[in-house]
Amino acid sequence: MDRHDQDRGATTIVTNAPDLVDVVALGESMVTFLPTRPGRLADVSSFERGIGGAESNVACGLAAAGHSVRWVSRVGADGFGDHLVSTIASYGVDVSAVHRDPSRPTGVYFRTAGDRGTDAHEVAYYRAGSAASAMSTADVDLGTSRVLHLSGITAALSDSCLELMRKLTAPREGRPLVSFDVNHRSGLWRDADGPRVLLELARGADVVFVGEDEAEEAWEVTGGPSSIRELLPEPGVLVVKQGATGATAFVSAAGECGLVAPRGGAAYRHGPAPLRSADDPGVQGVAPDPRRGGTPSARASETPP
Amino acid sequence: MDRHDQDRGATTIVTNAPDLVDVVALGESMVTFLPTRPGRLADVSSFERGIGGAESNVACGLAAAGHSVRWVSRVGADGFGDHLVSTIASYGVDVSAVHRDPSRPTGVYFRTAGDRGTDAHEVAYYRAGSAASAMSTADVDLGTSRVLHLSGITAALSDSCLELMRKLTAPREGRPLVSFDVNHRSGLWRDADGPRVLLELARGADVVFVGEDEAEEAWEVTGGPSSIRELLPEPGVLVVKQGATGATAFVSAAGECGLVAPRGGAAYRHGPAPLRSADDPGVQGVAPDPRRGGTPSARASETPP
Repeated sequence: MDRHDQDRGATTIVTNAPDLVDVVALGESMVTFLPTRPGRLADVSSFERGIGGAESNVACGLAAAGHSVRWVSRVGADGFGDHLVSTIASYGVDVSAVHRDPSRPTGVYFRTAGDRGTDAHEVAYYRAGSAASAMSTADVDLGTSRVLHLSGITAALSDSCLELMRKLTAPREGRPLVSFDVNHRSGLWRDADGPRVLLELARGADVVFVGEDEAEEAWEVTGGPSSIRELLPEPGVLVVKQGATGATAFVSAAGECGLVAPRGGAAYRHGPAPLRSADDPGVQGVAPDPRRGGTPSARASETPP
Repeated sequence: MDRHDQDRGATTIVTNAPDLVDVVALGESMVTFLPTRPGRLADVSSFERGIGGAESNVACGLAAAGHSVRWVSRVGADGFGDHLVSTIASYGVDVSAVHRDPSRPTGVYFRTAGDRGTDAHEVAYYRAGSAASAMSTADVDLGTSRVLHLSGITAALSDSCLELMRKLTAPREGRPLVSFDVNHRSGLWRDADGPRVLLELARGADVVFVGEDEAEEAWEVTGGPSSIRELLPEPGVLVVKQGATGATAFVSAAGECGLVAPRGGAAYRHGPAPLRSADDPGVQGVAPDPRRGGTPSARASETPP
């Protein structure tokens, strides 16, 4: 019997998977260091610690919204690993499948408060050889979930991580719904293969998220959301993020992922999300207090180099 | 004509080495992050930036004492590299031979305020693959100096750094006086070769510094300073550091390094250095203001993992 469905009074499902959760999110999280005042990294002398990680941010957000969520990753057997695991657990996320690596450190990064895309924005990653970069098909135990959430960042971390991502996005019997956030980070790829690999992985996913700007940067698609859909017709759902403008979602009629769509498919246009003020601690990248209903900010915590 | 001797009114030396300095110190320096309050790394949320590096600490101290000193190293072409170079230059150290690496980062480390050797002491290094680890015989330009100061840490950074250290401690015509601080850091060595390599390098140096405790840890010498001298008879000067007790210096009669010693050699016993209070910013690891005559604290800035 599935404990989560029972807890919510939903239809009881008899299953042999006692670890079944709504969503498994897999990926690296890092401890972040954010300056206490504006300025260049060379000039700022004190930093506040936060946490960052595209997939664990999704996990925390979904857990806060009432879903059962497991975060699967690797961290160092060190103080920063302790901090990541306990902070993410404090949002109600299951962290029991997070492996501790005694010989590889937890990744960290520093960034300035400057806006992305401006000269004032600097990011310094210390994630090469991190515990999470050693994720592999032999090492990771996802358990059972209805949805598996992944991002393209994981594919860039190491050869073993790329192999894992290829396995998880390959077709197989009984696969969970695979959600994939492209998250192209050109600075993380050791070679020029990033765009090609990300397209290959996205084609294997059921739900894909990609920024209109990153699709242009990675794949040189300039015709807007429809052109991106032409390049990526396979996923049942494609969400093109358009920054302050909102987003466009394409839903195919195939219904392979169990989503309801009109015959022939449809495109939905979404307005912009509510603005968050600069005083919002989530925007500053410092993990807000889950007891106050906050969740880490994906925007602030995974920034391109 | 040597500008430094001229400036001090010393004997004028005609030389073809316009870059002649008293001392060249070669080694990695890192940006350090020190908690603003006691506690484990997992629990501390804000950090103050400092700088650390055994060899650059020596360089800053000697420059503050009026010597002409050059620091030779590699740092990333990043904000932390800018900070290291400008801070060390502010002590009057020549940093013109420091190479900037566009593809490798400046090393950083975090540590707690707990005393070394206690459970409360944690250090997290992020220096693997750093800019300085790429130092090599092909890359480093030392210029000309009377003294070359090195430490055993450099030998542990990479194969190319070890090759460089072997070259610099090998006998050759016109070699400067080579000063070598053993600085055994077991956590930095990728294999069990550290102690053997450090002994080999120390035997090639003219002046060697080693802690009584580290000689015991690395070489299993338990008989005190005289036993360490028996293991290391080659250097003209051997200084055995004995923590709060002081130090013992052995000076050979050979006079190879131009030092004055009584016929037959001698051992000198030095009392302890003045205690520094815990409020001393140098002890906290934050670089003190050189305008107030402070120098970075070697004790605080290079701590064993």
